[in-house]
Amino acid sequence: MGTGLSSTKMGIAMKPQEEKRSDRKHREIMSAATKVFVAKGYDSTSMEEIATKAGVSKQTVYKHFADKERLFGEIILATTHQIDEVIGLVAETLGHTKDFEKDLSQLGRKFLSVLMDAQLLKLRRLVIANADRMPQLGRSWYERGFERVLATLASCFQRLAQERLLKLVDPLIAANHFVGMLLWIPVNEAMFTGNDRPRSKAALDGLADAATRAFIAAYGSKPKSATKAGT
Amino acid sequence: MGTGLSSTKMGIAMKPQEEKRSDRKHREIMSAATKVFVAKGYDSTSMEEIATKAGVSKQTVYKHFADKERLFGEIILATTHQIDEVIGLVAETLGHTKDFEKDLSQLGRKFLSVLMDAQLLKLRRLVIANADRMPQLGRSWYERGFERVLATLASCFQRLAQERLLKLVDPLIAANHFVGMLLWIPVNEAMFTGNDRPRSKAALDGLADAATRAFIAAYGSKPKSATKAGT
Repeated sequence: MGTGLSSTKMGIAMKPQEEKRSDRKHREIMSAATKVFVAKGYDSTSMEEIATKAGVSKQTVYKHFADKERLFGEIILATTHQIDEVIGLVAETLGHTKDFEKDLSQLGRKFLSVLMDAQLLKLRRLVIANADRMPQLGRSWYERGFERVLATLASCFQRLAQERLLKLVDPLIAANHFVGMLLWIPVNEAMFTGNDRPRSKAALDGLADAATRAFIAAYGSKPKSATKAGT
Repeated sequence: MGTGLSSTKMGIAMKPQEEKRSDRKHREIMSAATKVFVAKGYDSTSMEEIATKAGVSKQTVYKHFADKERLFGEIILATTHQIDEVIGLVAETLGHTKDFEKDLSQLGRKFLSVLMDAQLLKLRRLVIANADRMPQLGRSWYERGFERVLATLASCFQRLAQERLLKLVDPLIAANHFVGMLLWIPVNEAMFTGNDRPRSKAALDGLADAATRAFIAAYGSKPKSATKAGT
């Protein structure tokens, strides 16, 4: 049934081998289009240029994507899956933590390094720039990216609260606070300045460690004298 | 000397009374231009339309602002003064606080309500949208807006640490954490979705109170059992 749906989506019945080729082409067009959008912005990008970059005909691009807006939308929403997968993987390790502060700090570092990827930052800026024109896309990215990552973290924190490593009433607020302390400054700097002076890995790791210490001081179950936010 | 400089900037020698009129016109053009930029975006705004909206000639607009980019830049940078003034005023009250949590929460509420102003959010989005084209403007807004607000808060937190209401080593990191917990979610939601579902004042106040509780739990000097982040 899954195969049937996928073939229908392409508008023609395909054998498994052909489908794979079609999937590969789909990915190649998305990858080429991402590069063009990031380099030229949404308005200045044409389907023709994307076709040239992908090494396919314009007709092939239109066979996969009805128009530029839908192609852009698919690229944007694909990034939310990437981010959520990373967070899910790393958050899972917190479920069997032997050293909570170390593991939470690792999660922070990983999250920050994924979010500060130059291409992802540029796509993020494109979503914001086009939010008035494509409010539905912005809303989807917010819900599937932002809110889903927060929900993943919240359920992780909830589990840690059950294991008495954290003390909290509202795990979603706690997730919100961790991410806010981690990302507010570096992501905003990149948004406003076009990431013209990217921070070193060591500097980003330092931000992750500081956010982790403050988070544990605020939400950890140990007495504050045992934590390090203000020491 | 100040008057001399100002007259020179206008390219003509003016008497005090004329200067005042010129200042008023300058403000009126900026106000009209802000409305047009916010409604139509940077690209679709023309100096002609701004002149019409301001009820002046195009020539008058050009007498005050050499080109569209400089007019836009002046509008954007003026908002950073507004924000910093508000924060400075409110932070000052923390210097004589009788009820630290209540006053910090007031600061959070005020800051959030200023930042969530619909017009300011739209200008913020315009800066991000044009950061590639005008990196210098984005950098100035980041430094004069972002970093200055953080510096104001940091010196406020530093004073509170001297009064033993806070316990911290790096006041700038602490300021960064307070603002991040406060703003990450509502500001980003507004950036991505065009603020299509603005939060109520009560909801924003709730965010401010939660950020305040977590901040005091992390950085307050009282033992954690006396604070409320996780209770």
